[in-house]
Amino acid sequence: MAIVLFTDFGSRDLYLGQVKAVLARDAPGATIIDLLNDVPAFHVRAAAHVLASLVPCLPQGSVFLSVVDPGVGGAREPVALRAHGYWFVGPDNGLLSVFAARAAYTEASRIVWRPESLSASFHGRDLFAPVAARMEMDALPQGWLAPLEGLSIEFGAEDLAEIIYIDHYGNVMTGLRAGDAQRGATLIAKGVRVSHAPVFSAVQQGAAFWYPNSQGLAEIAVNQGNAADALRLQIGDPVGWAS
Amino acid sequence: MAIVLFTDFGSRDLYLGQVKAVLARDAPGATIIDLLNDVPAFHVRAAAHVLASLVPCLPQGSVFLSVVDPGVGGAREPVALRAHGYWFVGPDNGLLSVFAARAAYTEASRIVWRPESLSASFHGRDLFAPVAARMEMDALPQGWLAPLEGLSIEFGAEDLAEIIYIDHYGNVMTGLRAGDAQRGATLIAKGVRVSHAPVFSAVQQGAAFWYPNSQGLAEIAVNQGNAADALRLQIGDPVGWAS
Amino acid sequence: MAIVLFTDFGSRDLYLGQVKAVLARDAPGATIIDLLNDVPAFHVRAAAHVLASLVPCLPQGSVFLSVVDPGVGGAREPVALRAHGYWFVGPDNGLLSVFAARAAYTEASRIVWRPESLSASFHGRDLFAPVAARMEMDALPQGWLAPLEGLSIEFGAEDLAEIIYIDHYGNVMTGLRAGDAQRGATLIAKGVRVSHAPVFSAVQQGAAFWYPNSQGLAEIAVNQGNAADALRLQIGDPVGWAS
Repeated sequence: MAIVLFTDFGSRDLYLGQVKAVLARDAPGATIIDLLNDVPAFHVRAAAHVLASLVPCLPQGSVFLSVVDPGVGGAREPVALRAHGYWFVGPDNGLLSVFAARAAYTEASRIVWRPESLSASFHGRDLFAPVAARMEMDALPQGWLAPLEGLSIEFGAEDLAEIIYIDHYGNVMTGLRAGDAQRGATLIAKGVRVSHAPVFSAVQQGAAFWYPNSQGLAEIAVNQGNAADALRLQIGDPVGWAS
Repeated sequence: MAIVLFTDFGSRDLYLGQVKAVLARDAPGATIIDLLNDVPAFHVRAAAHVLASLVPCLPQGSVFLSVVDPGVGGAREPVALRAHGYWFVGPDNGLLSVFAARAAYTEASRIVWRPESLSASFHGRDLFAPVAARMEMDALPQGWLAPLEGLSIEFGAEDLAEIIYIDHYGNVMTGLRAGDAQRGATLIAKGVRVSHAPVFSAVQQGAAFWYPNSQGLAEIAVNQGNAADALRLQIGDPVGWAS
Repeated sequence: MAIVLFTDFGSRDLYLGQVKAVLARDAPGATIIDLLNDVPAFHVRAAAHVLASLVPCLPQGSVFLSVVDPGVGGAREPVALRAHGYWFVGPDNGLLSVFAARAAYTEASRIVWRPESLSASFHGRDLFAPVAARMEMDALPQGWLAPLEGLSIEFGAEDLAEIIYIDHYGNVMTGLRAGDAQRGATLIAKGVRVSHAPVFSAVQQGAAFWYPNSQGLAEIAVNQGNAADALRLQIGDPVGWAS
């Protein structure tokens, strides 16, 4: 279907082009979708929740090249995961574990293939891209993967009661799924109470509210303003439903 | 020809990839061109002038997915526009109206089709992308559009005597078309007089000047410097020709 | 193979889309790879070293549209270069000269073709893109190029003992090739001594080290931190090997 990039390589930086050169070589003609390449570095758990919320926006059969990997070059293993009709490659550091924990079925593998030349710092280009390309082409050689009982780090299926992402408008995404909230519930973000509204235009300009975002998560926004600045919120801050 | 993206979704953010997944599904193989995805949010009128200046840089037949839409989820209608050989989809908030007002002929339609699942905040993905994809494939189903007498908000065909865009070099684009200026005219930006020069290298390093930019607009620059910083200019500031 | 973009046009800005519209028109179906479009403006010599380090990451046969061109519209000539199986188009301001000086063979040409309409400020769109597209299609008309004895500005094949790039993680790339360093050598950056380590995880969190990066250059990093901020380094700062 498509190779989908979910990384912290930086959309402005010189890494993505090198990954895409490998994909063009090994999966010529494949559709490549830049889903998010500015995942905040070092926030692996938050990234795992962002990824889990985004996967259903892509068609089943997609191959996710998912790399947020502060431990590159260290002991963590590269893994492949088949879950709910999607394929993933990435580091075994928990990044894939939230989607996996929520999926109806999963099959994890260790990537045992190694390229002739493997840089210490850029497994996205040297290792994950060749594997993702072959998955997309349905041409993964026998022996590149080995069975794995399960992922090493498991963040679990539960919501993450933290801020997990802030978009360029300043909208603040939480790890709380909105479908679980009672209609009209109040959200508390770092001690501040935020009421529900269905759309931006339902509140006054400059007012904060929360709403179910287009990925199904509870999100805090300010009509025609920047919620992160207004409420001084950042990734990792605690959130929760008012009781 | 191509689907051309002109949005405020943010080139670094997680929205564009979701739009492109829909385009890949509904218009497989189509060329997609990211014209500008960091249109300054909330400046719809300035954005309308930027768009009008850029359209002629694309081939006729292109379909513009043009979304700068602070009122998403509110009362504004989604529209389609055929103008001067180009197709547009976007909100009926004036964004398309400057190009429309300058076009030899136009035909506006209301988009009456609605997807099964329409998020409150992301019509770019759920509504505009499926329509743009079908336009590109020349396969828009009967009944998706309904005739419209005209756009609801009309900014008019005239120049906008304001700063409408600042690029990453700090060059300052005005809403004044350079073709209308007398050769050697002086521009006044927020009270500061700026002389004409044909190219950057015609003035001393650090000197400000204006020149007709590659889109036909009068633009203020500083040779090897940042004009916006040097002259403290921002979007919306008044500009005009010295009399 | 592919048209590869290496420019300072800005990945967020409105220039790249216009270039790609020309490429789509003149080289329909060609693969286009955004290698780096946020090359720091005005640092032509540093950019030449970044480019030289990146070219081998792309397959031979690739056409590089390489534009960092503060002198656009001035006296510098547009050139084409064939070097070590790669093609390049760009300004004759030294940008291509480092790769050229290191290549086994080179053949430089002046681009003598001019489009009907050539803007003063956007040769990337009006002049370099049409030439690159025709190179990619192997359809460059006779007479568009004229022989050139050599490039006008030559930065030479030697390493550049300066900081040449800082990535979005804050990793600091030098113009020193790591293969020339003794194993365990110490790097000095703006007076600060930095020891070698093979990978991020080999040093304590927050510690600075240098390592051979994935492009073969010596790079300074901080484990789970921002080296540029920590050591207050910027492009152009002097670096060298401790004796």
